[in-house]
Amino acid sequence: MVDDRRRRLLAANQSFYDAFGARDFPAMDRLWARRHPVVCIHPGWLPLVDRQAVIGSWRDIFQHAGGAMVAAQSPRIVMDAPLALVLCFELVGGQLLAATNIFVEEDGAWRMIHHQASGVALEAIPASPGDDLPGALH
Amino acid sequence: MVDDRRRRLLAANQSFYDAFGARDFPAMDRLWARRHPVVCIHPGWLPLVDRQAVIGSWRDIFQHAGGAMVAAQSPRIVMDAPLALVLCFELVGGQLLAATNIFVEEDGAWRMIHHQASGVALEAIPASPGDDLPGALH
Repeated sequence: MVDDRRRRLLAANQSFYDAFGARDFPAMDRLWARRHPVVCIHPGWLPLVDRQAVIGSWRDIFQHAGGAMVAAQSPRIVMDAPLALVLCFELVGGQLLAATNIFVEEDGAWRMIHHQASGVALEAIPASPGDDLPGALH
Repeated sequence: MVDDRRRRLLAANQSFYDAFGARDFPAMDRLWARRHPVVCIHPGWLPLVDRQAVIGSWRDIFQHAGGAMVAAQSPRIVMDAPLALVLCFELVGGQLLAATNIFVEEDGAWRMIHHQASGVALEAIPASPGDDLPGALH
């Protein structure tokens, strides 16, 4: 049974992808923690390790990236205390990525403190329908 | 000042790369937590989400990978409570990767619960000596 805390966690994870897909900068800004250190490692980038750099990177991405479709698949809560760690797959402009998203609670809301997405090599993707991706994480 | 807790954390982070570089399977096995969920996302791989799969992947890598040089650079402790999160760069066979390593304390020792390494694109690497990599993380 998914309790309320975990339901809110999955909603926060989804809100990250909603903000990303909609290029909604205020929503992305709200999602990131303000009283904890934050880290973001975009695919191929050097790590960004302070809030200003992280938020600025999203502003740049939203301004300069095209209209690539963004979707999250198969979110899995690996832990929800003392921090929350969610794994999921991302589809960004047709590229499959494996993402780690870490959240803390601030003022009763889950806020992101860490995001890292790394490309999945084509040869790592199961070809058999029986080994589809959702099955890999559930 | 680096206190003893943080000194032991950096030593645990280094021991991961020592085990990796030496293909020392028992040392790698000892490093991973036994009472917490663990996650490992090798570059290009799907996430591995249980201890047996994670440890098995290292056994496979050690058996099948060549003698690629492994080194860690510029470790940075982002947080050390309630979990510890260390960022560093990895050089694996000449490829530069950005790594997140997360640790918990079990029986007074830092044990790894999460490792994700993602390739850094050549164009993201600073060319100027003034922007060298250690500077990017300190």
